Amino acid sequence: MDLFVFLNLNELSLAMSKLSMYPLFDMAHYTVSVMALKEQPGAVEVAQRSPFACWFSSMLYCFGGAVLSSLMLAEPPVAPLSNDRNVLMASLIWYLVFYSPQDMVYRCATILPIRVVLSGMKEVTRTWKVLGGVAQARKHYQEGLLVMIAVGWAKGAGGGLISNFEQLVRGIWRPETNELLKMSYPTKVTLMGAVLFSLQQSQYLPLQKHHLMFVYTVFLVVNKARMMLSGSSSWPFSPVEGAVYRALFAAQSTDWTSAAKAKAPVRTPASDTCAAAKTDVNAASDSQNGSAVSDTDGNVLRAPGASGEGSPKSGLRNKDQTGDQEAGSNKKTD
Amino acid sequence: MDLFVFLNLNELSLAMSKLSMYPLFDMAHYTVSVMALKEQPGAVEVAQRSPFACWFSSMLYCFGGAVLSSLMLAEPPVAPLSNDRNVLMASLIWYLVFYSPQDMVYRCATILPIRVVLSGMKEVTRTWKVLGGVAQARKHYQEGLLVMIAVGWAKGAGGGLISNFEQLVRGIWRPETNELLKMSYPTKVTLMGAVLFSLQQSQYLPLQKHHLMFVYTVFLVVNKARMMLSGSSSWPFSPVEGAVYRALFAAQSTDWTSAAKAKAPVRTPASDTCAAAKTDVNAASDSQNGSAVSDTDGNVLRAPGASGEGSPKSGLRNKDQTGDQEAGSNKKTD
Amino acid sequence: MDLFVFLNLNELSLAMSKLSMYPLFDMAHYTVSVMALKEQPGAVEVAQRSPFACWFSSMLYCFGGAVLSSLMLAEPPVAPLSNDRNVLMASLIWYLVFYSPQDMVYRCATILPIRVVLSGMKEVTRTWKVLGGVAQARKHYQEGLLVMIAVGWAKGAGGGLISNFEQLVRGIWRPETNELLKMSYPTKVTLMGAVLFSLQQSQYLPLQKHHLMFVYTVFLVVNKARMMLSGSSSWPFSPVEGAVYRALFAAQSTDWTSAAKAKAPVRTPASDTCAAAKTDVNAASDSQNGSAVSDTDGNVLRAPGASGEGSPKSGLRNKDQTGDQEAGSNKKTD
Repeated sequence: MDLFVFLNLNELSLAMSKLSMYPLFDMAHYTVSVMALKEQPGAVEVAQRSPFACWFSSMLYCFGGAVLSSLMLAEPPVAPLSNDRNVLMASLIWYLVFYSPQDMVYRCATILPIRVVLSGMKEVTRTWKVLGGVAQARKHYQEGLLVMIAVGWAKGAGGGLISNFEQLVRGIWRPETNELLKMSYPTKVTLMGAVLFSLQQSQYLPLQKHHLMFVYTVFLVVNKARMMLSGSSSWPFSPVEGAVYRALFAAQSTDWTSAAKAKAPVRTPASDTCAAAKTDVNAASDSQNGSAVSDTDGNVLRAPGASGEGSPKSGLRNKDQTGDQEAGSNKKTD
Repeated sequence: MDLFVFLNLNELSLAMSKLSMYPLFDMAHYTVSVMALKEQPGAVEVAQRSPFACWFSSMLYCFGGAVLSSLMLAEPPVAPLSNDRNVLMASLIWYLVFYSPQDMVYRCATILPIRVVLSGMKEVTRTWKVLGGVAQARKHYQEGLLVMIAVGWAKGAGGGLISNFEQLVRGIWRPETNELLKMSYPTKVTLMGAVLFSLQQSQYLPLQKHHLMFVYTVFLVVNKARMMLSGSSSWPFSPVEGAVYRALFAAQSTDWTSAAKAKAPVRTPASDTCAAAKTDVNAASDSQNGSAVSDTDGNVLRAPGASGEGSPKSGLRNKDQTGDQEAGSNKKTD
Repeated sequence: MDLFVFLNLNELSLAMSKLSMYPLFDMAHYTVSVMALKEQPGAVEVAQRSPFACWFSSMLYCFGGAVLSSLMLAEPPVAPLSNDRNVLMASLIWYLVFYSPQDMVYRCATILPIRVVLSGMKEVTRTWKVLGGVAQARKHYQEGLLVMIAVGWAKGAGGGLISNFEQLVRGIWRPETNELLKMSYPTKVTLMGAVLFSLQQSQYLPLQKHHLMFVYTVFLVVNKARMMLSGSSSWPFSPVEGAVYRALFAAQSTDWTSAAKAKAPVRTPASDTCAAAKTDVNAASDSQNGSAVSDTDGNVLRAPGASGEGSPKSGLRNKDQTGDQEAGSNKKTD
């Protein structure tokens, strides 16, 4: 890519692509992940009641992606446990974050500049994980573009995708919410990366691997830092997403009323559905912004945007409004 | 089999057994499956809120059997995604059924004759799927009759068997009901098929494969068409099932009272259990008919038979009567 | 080990290590497991409503460990079904325990001496299962100590670890409780065994395999018999556990108050958390004794010890006090 040569970035990106994640970047990933767990409502009580359940939850936060991608490819999901070195490191960090005297470690790590650096480093590991997942899938399915995307996504954003079951370990069950119904920022950005890397590996993208790694990593880190420092949580591709959504999925929204009236029996009184049809455009844009809000890495964000939350929604959503809001403040794994 | 020769059906059945499911029959399967999803309460709202969750749910409806049987045999559950052609076709159908202008595609497909033809074609794919599952299991466990039955059943009726988790994708959780507690018609008929084909493959049945395929397929299609056209939903083997149930499982029903009184603590007040023991025979026959009712492919059926539903039941059932009825109108995957 | 030679136990332990579990010990394991299922609240009703769901639940009680350990190592989880002989035996026992005339079989088996013998024999199978799991893991991960522990534990205590999903088969869902949050006696003792055998297999323990098998088995059987006969349910290592807990996890408990006040939003009113911090020491010891109580094999125990249950707990626990108590009387799988 000439631009890379022009900017003398070729060698830099090549050097970066040879970076080893162990130990520093892995450590940052574990720290940020365990801190995200500690900030979940109820996690501190679980840490007191059952250190073991807390440890297991932490491991799912740290290695959830590896577990999920292994399950998807029928490889042993206990594989991460066989890497003693990394499990030990993650366990140590878990212990320090949850049980250090005076809560010192956690308090230090929440100091904004430190947290920004740690989060930035964690984002770097995302590139490596997505790429690892794509490569892992490629070993099984040489031509399977969709499989590569799915596994790369799962490996990079596993902790979020299995969050329902991670919560179950801690005795919490929130079926009304999951990362597919309402994607958080990390989930979205990982999906985007998985698509890009899968296309690159299948040679549909005229880019070299280390160039793409460089661009994607820089995007991740810069965007993360921007979000944490500005407290803003806008997802940069919201306009694109909104346009696609309106073009593909909202065209016939007026039809829903009649369809729903005719078919969906029990749970949706027709009047309710009418309201839903009217608030459709709101709902649509809300579903993009809202999700960007409801991510990520804790109490730094927690920003505006839940604006649409009070408007009348139909069926399910109304029912668990409270649950939903809790969940909103709760979804910050990756 | 002489009867086949006599009726000149030998060649017909042989020809049928060489039929390719792709593309027409697969297409019918996807269409009917996605329509069944669209008729679930709340599905239309999910389609608006999160097209991705809706798409994922649809894929579980279309490929649930393949996913489940792969999990059971420790083969990659993402394998269906590697078949780009079929995923693309299913996705296109998903899009058309959920988002076509004026809801045209869905409306056309619900016209009774069209729906009967599509459902009949879908039933044909069931034979192929069950047989595929049995063969897949046989590769791993040459002698494992039970494994063949289980995997054949899972492949043919996977969407129904994993319905709890499919619903979870859409933010719905109904633990009080599942296909093992109350089998629907497709689940039962698939189990029957899995048993027959497993016996045939293990050479316990003196039948040729293509003859069995022919008989089973004709039974599936005729029975389905009859059910849809007459609005009746009687499971043809109810009397047999009832007799087996009474012979094996209801003999000592009076004992339950004392047993339950002595052991099961908290949840079952003894009086309640007495009532249960008395209504046992009702419950038994109800459990057969009721399940036949609660199946299948949508609003065409929705027939009598829930007659026993108002009678006093014990424990669990009483508790979620409402949930149960909703669920009744809700269980129509295969 | 000289002690063994001294006591002439060497040959005895060697002979014992060659004992075959089939058929007698396996039979005892199935009987005790199915009886434990029958004593679950609601199980008797499920047995009447849906024999199939009841059978499937029983199989999970009997073969849960094998299923879970297979899943963890990406081996086919249906493998237990391929062992026709054992499945048949377990099914027969399931039928006799649930449906025998006059409930005869179950009544006989609950006679104390018989039950003690059966339970003792079942404990013997635990040694074999743990060792089997460790060996199975070792085939995949020669050096993976943690993997061996995890798989050995899963194989020996699988029924308990997957109890949430086993309950789901019966239409019950209790997310607020699981074996990681509050380990029962069988789960703990199996974990201990898994650690010991994994260390032995990795040659960190200067013991011969058959010696360790002998010691562990004798400990299991004697302890079980003692618990059943005395009605006591004290976990012999409670003091050790308590000391470790206080040393590692309770040191900075006063910090929790401030940490929780600052971070955990919605669910934990600060006052509540203060109370939690104060009752910490209670909670700690309770968590050891309580779990020993809430195990095991039925109505013989059901002993004191739930003493701490009335004291004020924070957050989650308060919320589902009722559910928790039910669950307490409910957690007796292995």
